Amino acid sequence: MSNLENNLKIIDKLAIGVDLGGSKIGIALVKKNGEIEKYVKIPTNAEQGKELIINRIKQGIYQVIEEKDLQINNILGIGIGAPGPVDYKKGIIHCAPNLPEWTDVPLSNIIKDEFKIPVIVENDANAAAWGEKSFGIAKGIDDMICISLGTGIGAGLILNGKIYHGKNNLAGEIGHIVVNKEGPLCNCGNYGCLEAYSSASGIKNRINNKIKELETESQVLPPLLNFDDISLAQIFEMARQGNQIVQDIVDEAIEYLGIGIASVVNILNPEMVVLVGGITNEGEKLLNPLKETVFQRGMSSHLQDLKIVFGSLGEYAGVIGAAALLWNYN
Amino acid sequence: MSNLENNLKIIDKLAIGVDLGGSKIGIALVKKNGEIEKYVKIPTNAEQGKELIINRIKQGIYQVIEEKDLQINNILGIGIGAPGPVDYKKGIIHCAPNLPEWTDVPLSNIIKDEFKIPVIVENDANAAAWGEKSFGIAKGIDDMICISLGTGIGAGLILNGKIYHGKNNLAGEIGHIVVNKEGPLCNCGNYGCLEAYSSASGIKNRINNKIKELETESQVLPPLLNFDDISLAQIFEMARQGNQIVQDIVDEAIEYLGIGIASVVNILNPEMVVLVGGITNEGEKLLNPLKETVFQRGMSSHLQDLKIVFGSLGEYAGVIGAAALLWNYN
Repeated sequence: MSNLENNLKIIDKLAIGVDLGGSKIGIALVKKNGEIEKYVKIPTNAEQGKELIINRIKQGIYQVIEEKDLQINNILGIGIGAPGPVDYKKGIIHCAPNLPEWTDVPLSNIIKDEFKIPVIVENDANAAAWGEKSFGIAKGIDDMICISLGTGIGAGLILNGKIYHGKNNLAGEIGHIVVNKEGPLCNCGNYGCLEAYSSASGIKNRINNKIKELETESQVLPPLLNFDDISLAQIFEMARQGNQIVQDIVDEAIEYLGIGIASVVNILNPEMVVLVGGITNEGEKLLNPLKETVFQRGMSSHLQDLKIVFGSLGEYAGVIGAAALLWNYN
Repeated sequence: MSNLENNLKIIDKLAIGVDLGGSKIGIALVKKNGEIEKYVKIPTNAEQGKELIINRIKQGIYQVIEEKDLQINNILGIGIGAPGPVDYKKGIIHCAPNLPEWTDVPLSNIIKDEFKIPVIVENDANAAAWGEKSFGIAKGIDDMICISLGTGIGAGLILNGKIYHGKNNLAGEIGHIVVNKEGPLCNCGNYGCLEAYSSASGIKNRINNKIKELETESQVLPPLLNFDDISLAQIFEMARQGNQIVQDIVDEAIEYLGIGIASVVNILNPEMVVLVGGITNEGEKLLNPLKETVFQRGMSSHLQDLKIVFGSLGEYAGVIGAAALLWNYN
């Protein structure tokens, strides 16, 4: 077969998925079986503003197409997962945490104007959920909560086999379940949200506050200073190495996450809870105590068939899910 | 018109709704506009067992039909709301709290065998939600949480205009959101559930425990003894009359209810939260502080268009909703 014939053969099986994040943008050519044909990762450089980011997205899309010797009019369409509330029907990003200037951006039309092919924009947690449901661990599962654990905590809700959006496309904010009404201040302005305990930013804040508290008591602990730069992986490692302050806060983070999941399970009675995002690198050391809490705190009726698992698509859930919006979406 | 002609004229507009409760059974002939044509209320007498209850349901159905000079084969069908988890597809009641012997009862087939017309069985909280959505305050609302406040706390979830059941027909157990991990024992065996704070049984338990605690401290408070017989309306009245112990527990019940609702709103982003059931008789004295907590605790994005209201069908939400299952159900 000529190169052209070969390309035409696979053309109807390719869509482009874009995962727009606060620090990086992932762009992938995805086959209809969910396999990634080509992937590029570019920095977001959020501080450079909206226009430059949009240009970089366009360039990245051209890049993955050209590097596979394809032409844009042979691509099925482009799916984009973006942070914050998204009007998926109109393709508008209402606002995006960590992306200045991104207010009511009609990203779908902007990208459509450039490439003249179908474009779908979704919330990034929804896109990741759709990826795991379409091609990952949740394939064939119709009632599933896909929890994104990272700087914040969000979720994509798959109910009756479809993404559930809520009245104003704001469903899934499970990071803002109030787990302790007397708890610490959350980024949302409320107190005692799950996110304030169990997200990366929440855990870091709590450790830093504890350090400040100890410093006031004149018990300075040198290894914990300048904590803002430390990664969550390092925090978990410190906990394992016996730092009691860190261990206590990490233990409580996992306990509250389990309690939050138990509450969501009691409300929605899903078949599966899928965990995706940075914290999930912790593996069984996170999953085992987490499951223990969920199974201690959930209703026995709701736990019988419940599966609590890590996503199987890793960091690609977002791009694969965004591409999958083109094939079998709602 | 003859009586028969008159009856035939309204026939296609009537369905029967049954609301099977732990203490009473409501049975109604309902017109297609949601109006009740005939209503009877009979005692459940749960202790007499399953067979006698089923017989009383059958007799009640015959009664409402005969009293309106109709015949059973002219009725569209029978909808039944029942407590506990219900397999609505198979018409089986899996178990029913407060109804001994009710395990895996194929109520739909049993009633269908008797009357030879369509029968649909639903969970009672779902039926009430469907009533408010079809003919009550939530008419035209597609994303709505209908919270039943009584001995326990449950909810019917209307998502995308349909009842959401979850994987095993167990969705809506918002009474078992964990609002305080160190909180009091709940009927479900867990600690610190919303129901342990804000349901009628939870409020009573907490007051009784407080009395026992005070008695141990030799501070017997005569007016609070024999508290098991008191109604929730009386409890609220005592709170209003300045009993500080009762007031504190009632205040906390309302605060936790508000926190639980805020969490559900953040997760599901509904357009409306409808409160039904006994506690709602408290009116604005309950609703105002409750709204205050929800609006303090929910995410501002989710609260913009949110309505928090009492149901408009009162104690008839269950029978009307059960009947409405025949017309415009899922």
